[in-house]
Parts: sequence; C-alpha cells; structure tokens
Amino acid sequence: MDQTKSRRERLTGIQKEKSVDALLISSAASVKYFSGYFFYFEYGASPFHLLPAVCMIVPGGETTLIVADNEMGQASLENPALDVIPYESYSFEKAPDPSTAAVKKIVDFIAKNKLTTSRVGIECSSIPDRITRTLTEIFPSLEWVDIGADVAKLRMIKDDDEIASIRNAAALADIGQEAVMKYAKPGLSELELFSLVHRDMEASAGFRVPLMSDLSCGVGTNSGGGMPTGRIIRAGDPLLSDFQPCLQGYWGDSCNTVIVGAAPTSDQKETFSRVKEALGIGMMAIKPGMRAKELDRLMRNHIGNYPHHSGHSVGTAYHEEPRITPYNDIELQAGMVIALEPAIYHAEYGIRLEHLMLVTENGSEKLTQFEHRIEQ
Amino acid sequence: MDQTKSRRERLTGIQKEKSVDALLISSAASVKYFSGYFFYFEYGASPFHLLPAVCMIVPGGETTLIVADNEMGQASLENPALDVIPYESYSFEKAPDPSTAAVKKIVDFIAKNKLTTSRVGIECSSIPDRITRTLTEIFPSLEWVDIGADVAKLRMIKDDDEIASIRNAAALADIGQEAVMKYAKPGLSELELFSLVHRDMEASAGFRVPLMSDLSCGVGTNSGGGMPTGRIIRAGDPLLSDFQPCLQGYWGDSCNTVIVGAAPTSDQKETFSRVKEALGIGMMAIKPGMRAKELDRLMRNHIGNYPHHSGHSVGTAYHEEPRITPYNDIELQAGMVIALEPAIYHAEYGIRLEHLMLVTENGSEKLTQFEHRIEQ
Repeated sequence: MDQTKSRRERLTGIQKEKSVDALLISSAASVKYFSGYFFYFEYGASPFHLLPAVCMIVPGGETTLIVADNEMGQASLENPALDVIPYESYSFEKAPDPSTAAVKKIVDFIAKNKLTTSRVGIECSSIPDRITRTLTEIFPSLEWVDIGADVAKLRMIKDDDEIASIRNAAALADIGQEAVMKYAKPGLSELELFSLVHRDMEASAGFRVPLMSDLSCGVGTNSGGGMPTGRIIRAGDPLLSDFQPCLQGYWGDSCNTVIVGAAPTSDQKETFSRVKEALGIGMMAIKPGMRAKELDRLMRNHIGNYPHHSGHSVGTAYHEEPRITPYNDIELQAGMVIALEPAIYHAEYGIRLEHLMLVTENGSEKLTQFEHRIEQ
Repeated sequence: MDQTKSRRERLTGIQKEKSVDALLISSAASVKYFSGYFFYFEYGASPFHLLPAVCMIVPGGETTLIVADNEMGQASLENPALDVIPYESYSFEKAPDPSTAAVKKIVDFIAKNKLTTSRVGIECSSIPDRITRTLTEIFPSLEWVDIGADVAKLRMIKDDDEIASIRNAAALADIGQEAVMKYAKPGLSELELFSLVHRDMEASAGFRVPLMSDLSCGVGTNSGGGMPTGRIIRAGDPLLSDFQPCLQGYWGDSCNTVIVGAAPTSDQKETFSRVKEALGIGMMAIKPGMRAKELDRLMRNHIGNYPHHSGHSVGTAYHEEPRITPYNDIELQAGMVIALEPAIYHAEYGIRLEHLMLVTENGSEKLTQFEHRIEQ
C-alpha cells in the first residue's frame, strides 16, 4: 500500500492557494514525507548527486520520484507503488555529470506532463540554483513559486503510518536510555558510553542508525550538554543523555539525567523532582486547542526560566513545528507529535528530562516509554 | 596561521578565466577547502540553516565566512584568522527564519564590497535557488557564473596542511583495519564489529568521526560489500572492510579482506596475492605525468576486469578527481592524493585491497600504513 498517497492528496490545498499546477519537492524531509524514500545522510552530501532525489507531483495526476541510480534499491524498497525514474549518478566508464543527468529527467517530466508554461511550486531554500536556472533556460514561460513554508506546515499533522514510524524511533531512544543505565560507570569516557548506546540501538534496528546526541557528564551538563568527548565519567557525576535516533527517516527524541555510580545529593534529587513535575504538568496539559505558548508557560512557571524552548515536534526532520516556545500561537491538534524537555541548569550541573508525546483527540499519549530516574 | 590563504590566492586563475569579480562558495567541500570551517554532517541538513556557511571571496580582497550562529564556535576554532559573520539560525524567543537571515548577510557583503553590478562565481549545483533569486531581485545587474567545475579542479592538488590532515584521517583508517584484525570473530555481527571499529577510531580522535564503510562477511563480499548489517560472522568467512573516516573535514580511505577465525583456502590465498600484486604494481607506477587511465590499465591488466574504478582521490570530499578509470586522461601531478583499490570478485567471495597514496615529485608515498593480510 502506498501510504504517502494521502499526504500528496493534501497538496490540493496548496495547489489552490498558491495557484500552482505542479510541485517539485527537493528537501530531504519533504521527499521522505511525500514519497517514502529516505536518503541515508550520515556521509554528508554525495559527490555523485545533484540531490539524492526530487519528487515531482501533479496533484490529482502523476507523481514521480527522480532518484540517483545508486539509490534505486532504497527508493523502490521504501515505496514500491511509486513511479521511480533513475538518473545516472556515477559510472567508472565515463566522466560523471550527475547534475546534467538529473536536470534532464526533470525536463522530461515537465515536457511529458505538458507543464512547460505552468506555475511550479518549489522549496526555494533547498532546491539548487542549477535546477531552476536550467529549466528556465529551456522553458522560459515556467513560473516558480516558493511553497517551502506551506509544505512544512502540512507536515505538522502526522498520519497513522508516520506515528508508527515515530513510535519505532522513540523505542530506539528508549533503548538508548536503558543502555545508559546499564553501562554508565566511572572510568568510561563519554565516547565509549556513546558507542555502547549506539551499538544497542543498531543491533535492535539491524542496520546503521544516524544518532544525534548530547551525552555529557559533570559540569558540562550545566549548559545543556553537547556531543560526547573523551572526558572520563567519575563517580557522582551527573550525566545528561539526549538521544535523537533517525530510523529510516523518522526521528525519535528522549532525554534523561542520572547520577553515575553514587547516590544523588538531596539538592540533585530535589532538582530532578522539580523538573519531573514540570514535565508531568506539561504532559498532562496537552490537548487539542491549547496554544503552544501556553504549554511553554506552564512548564516555565513551575521551575523558572531556561535558555531554550520547552519542546518541538519531530517527524522527517529532527526539529519541526509546532515549537513549544514563549512566542508561538499555534494551536495543538490531534496528530501532532511533541517532544517536551524542561530543564533546570545550576552552575555546577543541569538536569533535563524529555518525553515524546502524541496529541490525541482527548489529550495525549506518551510515545517514549523509558521512566526517568536520577538513581542508576 | 591562516593555511587556507594560499588556496584562495589560487582563485585568481578562475577569476581571470571566467571574468568574475567575486566568488560565493556554497558546497560543504569547497567551504572547508577555502575557509577551514567544517560542518559536522552526521545529522543531515539542519532545519535551522539555509546552508551551514557560505564563503564570500574577493580575490586579492576580502574573504568572509557567513555562518549560522550556532556554528560560530566551530567556525572560529577552525580558522581564527578569517572574518566570520554569524547569521541567526534559531532562537527560542522568536520564529526562526534562517534563510532570510543568511541572505541578508550576503546582501550586506555584496553592498559593502561594491559588487552590486559585478559577475559572481557560484557553485550552481549546491547553491540554493533562494540565494541567487533574492540577490537578483535586490541587485538586478548581478551576473552569475557557474565555477563549480573549476573549483573542483583546483581542489585536486593538495597543500601541505591538507596532506597532513589526510595523513591523520588515513591513520584512523589504519586503526580501523587493526581493530578488525583484533576483534573480528565468529558469532559477532557485522554491526557489532563495526561498533568496535568506530569506537577505536573515535577514542583516538577524542570526538565523533563520520565513517563511511563497507563491512560485509561471507558471500556479500562477492559484489564488493555494503553497509554492515545484523549478519553473523562465521568461521572461515571472508570479511571485506573498507573504511572512509572523515576527520574534521578531510577523508581517509583503506580496504582489506581477511578470512576470519580459520586458515584461508589456497584459492583465497592465491586470489589475495594476485590483488596485492596488482595494488603493488599500481603503487610502484605512480609518478607525475602518468595518465590516470594508464594507471587504471596496469592494474586491470594484471588481474582482469572489475566492475568499478581502480581508484579516486579524497580530500574535503570522499571522492574527487583524479579518478583512476579507463577513460580518464588526467595527468598525475605532485600533491595529488589517490586511493587505489583493485579487486577480484568470484561468485563465492571477493577480495579488495586499498592503499591511500600521495603523488610526489619522484613517485609516490604511502599514506595508509596498515599491511594488508588475509590471515587474521
């Protein structure tokens, strides 16, 4: 079953509002959203791609994924129902020219679908100049319309299959938190612990899993943590572990703070309790119709201010609307996914706790299952 | 010392040839090359960036790195001599609009340097439409010239500091091969072995290291291997390990094939010897003035054809010119870096061996030090 079809059908709204005849989707997050195809990004940009793929959509008509030929296996696997057209990325038998090859396939699609004088919606911030420049040279009557913000808005409400994907990514984040509880010990470096955490996630997935993570011990927690380093964990160190694994294109999110190899002090226990209360207050308050900024204020009111958002959404990007911030008027709706992450940062250490939540018709459901605890 | 200065000075050639007054560098590989700034890409594209950074260069004049403010630490660390101007990427206090913020800084640079009616060199395949579109609206007399291929050509010859960086990345690849020899054993999955390899590299670096890798056991080696999976290594399995670690923006490269936990068969030993001979023949032949395709032919002639290139360069991208292929007329020059990787693929298994080489005035120097061996 093509689970992305209902998402493409929702493009008719943007089609009318922006008077576009077709859409050329180029950002990795939106290509995943509309086609199911996921580019494995841990190596950075490929020298053999213009883009790994672009998704051409005529609402109510044809959808085609134009994809680098070395990605064909992955593209077909993700959504066998979709038309997939390869462009030549690399061959050892002739000089590579993936940009020309990719643009040629887009030109073919435009011509075949009689779009040569139409208005085409694009994501201006992600589409390379090369594509719009060459297309304009060939079809001077083409008009380009930026629909980047509209598409991002569409992505806020998750379909059932997306919620299932995020649930699976959240389960990997849970595995990460359990791994910290199991393996963290004095003498281990942050990087060594990170390696064990990552190993357990990938063993569960059966393939490599991109993992964004703060993993910091000691005083480094006082500003929210950062990427793991060679720093050695000592007994009694606070350890902040924030994990965002990306499972085939959908992101999970979870954060805990634990005291390693020693009993927490009463001050640490008290701080932990207050952050956990703030998180609980936020979780209990979530319901459709509530404004993001109200949710933000509830948590800040309980524990005082912190120098970051109270949360954000995840989906095919690790950070999406709705953002739970002091300014944000957006109303929560059923089908939104929200990571809540209140925190208290003292001079000596910080504690941040995070759960990933689904907004439901009546309130919310917790997607991460790990139970936060400060004692290892 | 600003080690990137000599590279920017070499842009005067492109400046004359293409009659450009300034360059707007946007690809991650070229931004690293001309500014030293490395964006850590393992999380994919950031929703808070238009691009992590663009490098604005007026040859003989000003150079400015316009960088997302959440990358300022990294950018200043890499090249303290450079002018670095931040653009606002994300703040929890107002709705993010990094694209507008980034373009504004580019507009300011163009205006300040009196470039509003000039010809500006761009990398068309990596620069977002948003930048050229908005700049053209504001400064309609600006002309854009694609200098992507010219810059890629410039990157072929490595400076001393670049060679030092590649040498360090090659040393990480060596650590990976030694880790395979040490840890590979029957019962371990490819992913578990990968985790140990990656851990040892990151322990050596002291921070996270992006790692591109084929790591495949058994019959999976017969087509060159692929990303590690949950497949369990068995005694007597061939194991192909190709590691490309990226150390602060420069890539290493190395490949070996070993028989795990058992003596190799005489057929395997014979195949290994032939590939090693082919690699040796290639390594010995490297010298300035030789054509890439001659080097390619020497290795293929010794062991028969294989369905991929005989090698390629690495630098700020994991795959660069000169490519060692049957069609490539490029002449080798001192300062080029070449990974050579001949292979024999049988139906039951494959063997590929790879060293990273520096072309010197008189011949070549080996940058990877690991000694290939088929017996564990």
